Amino acid sequence: MLKPVLQHLQTQADASVQRLCDFLRIPSVSTDSAYAEHVQEAAQWVRERLTQAGLQTSLQASTTHPIVMAHNADDPDLLPNAPHILLYGHYDVQPPDPLELWETPPFEPTIRSDAIYARGASDDKGQVCCMLEALAAWKQVHGHIPIRVTVLIEGEEECGSGALHQFVHEHQEDLKADVVIISDTTMWDKNTIGITYGLRGLLYYDLKLHGPSRDLHSGMYGGVLANPCNELTAVLGKLFDDQHRITIPGFYEDVLDLTDAEREQWEELNFDAKEHCLKPVGVEQPHGEAGFTTLQRKWARPACDINGLYGGYGGKGAKTVIPSFAGAKVSFRLAANQNPKTIAKAFEDWLDSHDVHGCRWERTHLGDATPVVVSQDSPFMTAASKAIEDASGKLPVLVREGATIPVVGQFKQDLGIDSLLIGFGLVDDSIHSPNEKFDLKCFHLGCRTHAALIAQLAEMAQPSAVSSE
Amino acid sequence: MLKPVLQHLQTQADASVQRLCDFLRIPSVSTDSAYAEHVQEAAQWVRERLTQAGLQTSLQASTTHPIVMAHNADDPDLLPNAPHILLYGHYDVQPPDPLELWETPPFEPTIRSDAIYARGASDDKGQVCCMLEALAAWKQVHGHIPIRVTVLIEGEEECGSGALHQFVHEHQEDLKADVVIISDTTMWDKNTIGITYGLRGLLYYDLKLHGPSRDLHSGMYGGVLANPCNELTAVLGKLFDDQHRITIPGFYEDVLDLTDAEREQWEELNFDAKEHCLKPVGVEQPHGEAGFTTLQRKWARPACDINGLYGGYGGKGAKTVIPSFAGAKVSFRLAANQNPKTIAKAFEDWLDSHDVHGCRWERTHLGDATPVVVSQDSPFMTAASKAIEDASGKLPVLVREGATIPVVGQFKQDLGIDSLLIGFGLVDDSIHSPNEKFDLKCFHLGCRTHAALIAQLAEMAQPSAVSSE
Repeated sequence: MLKPVLQHLQTQADASVQRLCDFLRIPSVSTDSAYAEHVQEAAQWVRERLTQAGLQTSLQASTTHPIVMAHNADDPDLLPNAPHILLYGHYDVQPPDPLELWETPPFEPTIRSDAIYARGASDDKGQVCCMLEALAAWKQVHGHIPIRVTVLIEGEEECGSGALHQFVHEHQEDLKADVVIISDTTMWDKNTIGITYGLRGLLYYDLKLHGPSRDLHSGMYGGVLANPCNELTAVLGKLFDDQHRITIPGFYEDVLDLTDAEREQWEELNFDAKEHCLKPVGVEQPHGEAGFTTLQRKWARPACDINGLYGGYGGKGAKTVIPSFAGAKVSFRLAANQNPKTIAKAFEDWLDSHDVHGCRWERTHLGDATPVVVSQDSPFMTAASKAIEDASGKLPVLVREGATIPVVGQFKQDLGIDSLLIGFGLVDDSIHSPNEKFDLKCFHLGCRTHAALIAQLAEMAQPSAVSSE
Repeated sequence: MLKPVLQHLQTQADASVQRLCDFLRIPSVSTDSAYAEHVQEAAQWVRERLTQAGLQTSLQASTTHPIVMAHNADDPDLLPNAPHILLYGHYDVQPPDPLELWETPPFEPTIRSDAIYARGASDDKGQVCCMLEALAAWKQVHGHIPIRVTVLIEGEEECGSGALHQFVHEHQEDLKADVVIISDTTMWDKNTIGITYGLRGLLYYDLKLHGPSRDLHSGMYGGVLANPCNELTAVLGKLFDDQHRITIPGFYEDVLDLTDAEREQWEELNFDAKEHCLKPVGVEQPHGEAGFTTLQRKWARPACDINGLYGGYGGKGAKTVIPSFAGAKVSFRLAANQNPKTIAKAFEDWLDSHDVHGCRWERTHLGDATPVVVSQDSPFMTAASKAIEDASGKLPVLVREGATIPVVGQFKQDLGIDSLLIGFGLVDDSIHSPNEKFDLKCFHLGCRTHAALIAQLAEMAQPSAVSSE
């Protein structure tokens, strides 16, 4: 059944790229309320595509951005006993700034060097389209999708997935599939698809330190009262020790150690960190927690990053001011088995343990996500491996990711189901950065892989009833 | 000769406030090139007022903002052997941001509670107008100003006085007066004028720390390379020790200690730091170098302030980015006898002594100023005391200032002359902050004092020839 679907995808190659461009033109930045209308528009766009794939669709309103839901539970011709899959993705994107560094505008998708450049091209609109194209192709070729599918495409992955969290929690019965399938990660290299069995978690804070009731002249007040910029840097400057370990008491207590088997597996990947991770972003020198390789730091160790600093005068030239506040965006990438709530408490206690000389913290918890590690040998992992071989001609490798997909931990927690993370991005896609792109080759491979995965999962149910034609 | 001048000023009271409002309407922000045209306009405005006072005027073009120069050297009727005074002020202002905190727009001067609210009201347009009104009143009443006057009103005091520096250096002969008179400081209290005999110096840097060649996703790169925000805070967080002393080696080496006489004088001022310095700006707790009072810290000890932090994401919500750079505006207030060049070298060496793990500093020296202390008992100081008594009915107190007037050190260095600093601002004027204001009472007192000072200086020359009528 797969072959004609793949053939159909081939004929649709150009049209599918045009559809992706339409999707990318919608500036669905979820974290900034100025874009709210466009976020809504992107949700509608996804819904229409899912309707075209023959699914029953709905927009699940939330207090923020809607969740697009679709399913075929009422299809009488589904293969009996086939697995029920939950396809997940997100239609929202990161803010595009700094705008001046984009070669072409972030919301005017442009194709050059066989890649499509736009905000969200790789994260995650391009990868969502891989799913949408595969579903539509099955519908087109076979009249329907042969296994039970539930689709959830949310609109606030980039700002904490608050609405989804509640939705999943409240609709556990409808959503209880056998496995979740997500495409929001990267390939191991241009020719090798990776199945990601582990993700780091996240904890994100906006920390604002308030001092004087107004901005002050640094000549009149310099040296006689606490300057929030000085105090903020004094505290945040103590986040790391000289081994670049995070100094928050108890921070590493729950971190899951790597198994010897994993260490070996990872060594066999022959990952050249300098060549493939650092040099492409202009960095010569690895820097991180002492005693670990770059790959171990990225996949298995926690990190703490200041994502932004603000406060006082940041314009051209000099302004001799003591600002009334200073702030920082501070986030943690959590390693397997760390609990965001435990770390949040430890971090807040650590902040409180520092004398800020009369200044006052305003701490805003901007979301968290539990880290995840799943078993390397489930039947779904096997089916995925076969599908990947069918679509790409090559077996996948098993990897982890340093990044976070907040819902993966939540699906596990609320629905008790594991996720299959099969991504088609490349590490040089510049996601969250200017000039984000998605290689067309990866896009088409993603479409084929999702089509093949449906075929493999269908075979899991009734091997005899499904021809491998 | 003074009495009719004071009477004239009285009749001009309302008109002089209107003239000040006209001046304040011009947004002459010198540090931001977007305002360049308005800076020019403000220079023209000052020039016209000086022409009306009967002086020969010129705009001294510079590569940046013009210097308004005026003099009466050709007046044949000047009192012989009277001192030649150099009046100095600046017509540029600080940037008005944050705009949203102004009760009325910064460049729409508004009078409420007997004060005039606008950017530059107190620093320094209002105080410049005190001089302009006094000069014009002498001209109006007596047909000319009886002593030799040179006026220099510059347009970039708020951004380093670069052009003036060169101008003074190149015109030493023309400018070599006997004393400089400056109004750019504050009164001791609402009823007591202070003569300022010491100012702190300044050293200002923009520090930008560059890391990856582009903004990165903190999930993919968190913990494996140096984050410029993390590195910047780690370095700047080490600026102070636990006694709140600046940790730069040799930093305090040249600082002039207070004399016992000064300690006593300052104690007699009965300055209530909490009540008059901290509480008005919403601060409960003094904080500064251990072992010194607030007044000593402000007037006689150096300080280091981070005036602004920037880099990465500072908008609403969360963005999980590792920025390609992070920056800080860092300035020092230098105490008497510290040399800006020595401190600049020590600071840069100190920065270089820290490992920033492959990041690269871009350091921009944005100007400096030498600290100043002048003798408490010169004949000009005596004349000023008498003039202040004539104008206010009360003798002045001798004080220092924590702030910097960069040209004071330069006049001393290039022309060999001391400055008389007689200010009419109040500490609650919110200079460099939103809602800057200048009390009308202070404005009129300033006009009278400058008029009286001309009379007293005239008397220094030929006591017999000048009636005290």
